[in-house]
Amino acid sequence: MTRPTQPIRTTMGWSKPDKIVVKGRDITTDIIGKLNLGDMAFLEMTSRLPNSQESIMFNAVAVTLVEHGITPSALAARMTYMGAPEGIQGAVAAGLLGLGSVFVGTTEGSARLLQEALPDPKANVDLKELAKTTVAAYHQRGGIIPGIGHPVHKPIDPRTPRLFQIAKETGFHGRYVELMQLVAQEAERVYGKQLPINATGAIGAVCSEMGFSWKVCRGIGVFARAVGLVGHIVEEMNNPISREVWFRTEDEATANALADLAKQK
Amino acid sequence: MTRPTQPIRTTMGWSKPDKIVVKGRDITTDIIGKLNLGDMAFLEMTSRLPNSQESIMFNAVAVTLVEHGITPSALAARMTYMGAPEGIQGAVAAGLLGLGSVFVGTTEGSARLLQEALPDPKANVDLKELAKTTVAAYHQRGGIIPGIGHPVHKPIDPRTPRLFQIAKETGFHGRYVELMQLVAQEAERVYGKQLPINATGAIGAVCSEMGFSWKVCRGIGVFARAVGLVGHIVEEMNNPISREVWFRTEDEATANALADLAKQK
Amino acid sequence: MTRPTQPIRTTMGWSKPDKIVVKGRDITTDIIGKLNLGDMAFLEMTSRLPNSQESIMFNAVAVTLVEHGITPSALAARMTYMGAPEGIQGAVAAGLLGLGSVFVGTTEGSARLLQEALPDPKANVDLKELAKTTVAAYHQRGGIIPGIGHPVHKPIDPRTPRLFQIAKETGFHGRYVELMQLVAQEAERVYGKQLPINATGAIGAVCSEMGFSWKVCRGIGVFARAVGLVGHIVEEMNNPISREVWFRTEDEATANALADLAKQK
Amino acid sequence: MTRPTQPIRTTMGWSKPDKIVVKGRDITTDIIGKLNLGDMAFLEMTSRLPNSQESIMFNAVAVTLVEHGITPSALAARMTYMGAPEGIQGAVAAGLLGLGSVFVGTTEGSARLLQEALPDPKANVDLKELAKTTVAAYHQRGGIIPGIGHPVHKPIDPRTPRLFQIAKETGFHGRYVELMQLVAQEAERVYGKQLPINATGAIGAVCSEMGFSWKVCRGIGVFARAVGLVGHIVEEMNNPISREVWFRTEDEATANALADLAKQK
Repeated sequence: MTRPTQPIRTTMGWSKPDKIVVKGRDITTDIIGKLNLGDMAFLEMTSRLPNSQESIMFNAVAVTLVEHGITPSALAARMTYMGAPEGIQGAVAAGLLGLGSVFVGTTEGSARLLQEALPDPKANVDLKELAKTTVAAYHQRGGIIPGIGHPVHKPIDPRTPRLFQIAKETGFHGRYVELMQLVAQEAERVYGKQLPINATGAIGAVCSEMGFSWKVCRGIGVFARAVGLVGHIVEEMNNPISREVWFRTEDEATANALADLAKQK
Repeated sequence: MTRPTQPIRTTMGWSKPDKIVVKGRDITTDIIGKLNLGDMAFLEMTSRLPNSQESIMFNAVAVTLVEHGITPSALAARMTYMGAPEGIQGAVAAGLLGLGSVFVGTTEGSARLLQEALPDPKANVDLKELAKTTVAAYHQRGGIIPGIGHPVHKPIDPRTPRLFQIAKETGFHGRYVELMQLVAQEAERVYGKQLPINATGAIGAVCSEMGFSWKVCRGIGVFARAVGLVGHIVEEMNNPISREVWFRTEDEATANALADLAKQK
Repeated sequence: MTRPTQPIRTTMGWSKPDKIVVKGRDITTDIIGKLNLGDMAFLEMTSRLPNSQESIMFNAVAVTLVEHGITPSALAARMTYMGAPEGIQGAVAAGLLGLGSVFVGTTEGSARLLQEALPDPKANVDLKELAKTTVAAYHQRGGIIPGIGHPVHKPIDPRTPRLFQIAKETGFHGRYVELMQLVAQEAERVYGKQLPINATGAIGAVCSEMGFSWKVCRGIGVFARAVGLVGHIVEEMNNPISREVWFRTEDEATANALADLAKQK
Repeated sequence: MTRPTQPIRTTMGWSKPDKIVVKGRDITTDIIGKLNLGDMAFLEMTSRLPNSQESIMFNAVAVTLVEHGITPSALAARMTYMGAPEGIQGAVAAGLLGLGSVFVGTTEGSARLLQEALPDPKANVDLKELAKTTVAAYHQRGGIIPGIGHPVHKPIDPRTPRLFQIAKETGFHGRYVELMQLVAQEAERVYGKQLPINATGAIGAVCSEMGFSWKVCRGIGVFARAVGLVGHIVEEMNNPISREVWFRTEDEATANALADLAKQK
């Protein structure tokens, strides 16, 4: 009794001596010199080229996610580079590993909220009502609504109006954006505090407009942040901060441990 | 006796409630909607915006490195996704970790060869002579010259003439490209076989022309491949191959182990 | 207005020129030559030394999790080693990244089930009734009960009776083990199929007996598998299989892509 | 023309419904309850069981490498845990990625030095002479000799005499240990400063005595540190420090950026 095998298939690409095809397109005639990196990412994720509106919107989303200054993810990458400078892929990988449920993963959360509330954006649904029931459900079970609120950017996150402006210009300011806005308004009312749509909420809405399943949204954050982490490594090569952060932390931990020990005696 | 502390400084960015600055530029007015992802990567790596020629050349380099079909790196990412689908950052990180000395790291190798041979591209040096001594040095110590030769793409790697054509159009077809070509010619003569400039050799040359230190070149491959790995994960979500590859491999390994055991008896 | 800082404290260890203290113990007099690696892991996780019973049980759990032959995790590690043989930490890390919700993470699941059902193991509760309500809750919401059932090891997983035998000998065969057994029996009744306690279920139960929070159980699997992955890398160094797996997979994918292309014409 | 395939073979293990074999041994009768975690690691790396002397020495080496307090690697793991607490394998992997050329990788360096200088430990060679030429070669090319010198542990690293004492008791205090000692003495003479054998030097020597190729030595450090990193994550769960380290670093970086900006105006 043998297990029946399944064929191995992929649409990613193939090559022969004089030709390389990626996602059905000849890399020399259709890709190199024709696509910018954001368009290429769109092709990788959707198996088709973006039109000019999609190119603008998708690149806008991607560049928003590249750089956030000194984050835990950037610190992990820099600490790793200090120990293994011979292979910067390890440092970038270490930085990416922190893009989980707490930080960048939230893009996925807001897209999921919107797509689960409104599976078909053309459905004849009262969005105001939908926002009400959605917020009520989160509120009842004590959950945090993804995509709204920000510890620093109050009363508005400056990236949100900019992203929605581009969404308007490119035709992606539809019912998912509207629903996200109604959810934020309703949440402010129910929770009784400022809960502006943050960048991940704006991106979750715009990605939903573009037809991306919430399941792949975190992927955009992952490759965008890989770009930013390379930036951090380049800076760390020339103006390192990781050693100083390490020394300060270890010195203080040691001093506190010795002080505690002295007290016990 | 206390260790004197060093200040923590970064040029990556900072923010306040109504403003986010990345690499000295306001993210809403200068970045979102203005830069494509490749331009953003250029800004991250060089702390300045690319001009239009640099934008074309840099994006061309980046998109070349995104996708290479079923590579060991893509298989590692897909295997990881199978075990931990809840966090695709882990799968992308696993894929990046294989970008070491054997595969993508070779971009760095060819850039290093060129920049160490010709630290100042404007120096008054006979490039033909330089190619001769460079190849001789590698040949003598039995080394492999980075950036030339390809197991599949013979007699030429189709990406190389395309990249060099764009280099011509954008003003980056200078002495590093010339030196790379002379090295390949000389190597073919000395080693007595076809050794075309491959994509990583072309990219090493072009990156040298653009002023990138060889030390940061692997970084371009790392973020570009992160884009490609997200593409693989998206395909794996919908049309997985990892389970089949795993089962086949394990089944054969087990069958061979049992056959060996039976023989021993 | 400045943020009030918190002190940096750790119990992990500290050192001065002639002394190194780890978890409150002098590394030369109390650790090196005194503890085996499993005992050391126990110390790291609990901040105290295991007694002899705990040492036996904990090492038994750990060695059970080390090696599972050709897994997706092992393949990811081997693929990564092929690309970056200069840094085996990357290959091990890649292998660990697949220890998510699908595979090793299930240890955590069964421990969680038990600890949430029976927060206080000494509580005066009817375990049979508890098993009934627990299984009913999973069954109703269509969930898979962690720790029971195995695709290969039927009707029993041979590791389970061995682990429970050691649990008996060391005094860790208490109410969590009993509850796990009752859950498996009840599940077999309700689901109408063989659902033996698998190794992760046995380990989840034993770890609960030993007082480990379910939140840290995955950690045991992670370091145990790191041991196994180093074993795979050592074999891959001498008798590689990754290149063959890669070539077969890529060759078939390419052949299928070309066949599909030919059909379209 | 088809590529001839190679068979897939492994010695790691195989299983059938009622039996699991790892490295040629039945997991229930020969491994679980019989081997401690260090012995299991020895089996994974050498395909045989350690004798009692090897068990003591190997476990001593492994536990030495588990924990070093607040290292860059531990900080990377903790930063990653903050962002992705749902999957601690990612945090451990991030921590492992820093075990490169600068820190734990040095174990490999001293083993390599010894094994390249003395490929056959039974060879009739004057070790004093060998130490002289070895040190001279490093000194001439300005290299750092791996395994000697320590920023903190002066004039001796307390782990070294302890490891060598165990080596004596277990029969692993042979010519590699002697060579390492002679190298350190000669280096102190040539470089004119205190250069005690540090822990990685002692471990490199002892691993060479046990017959481990320098190529696999880093592996011991990798799985040992995985144990330590799990310890750090467990502490971070209950008494986190990563957020404080992050906030302090980001706050200072932002304050400095704003001060620089104010100066420019």
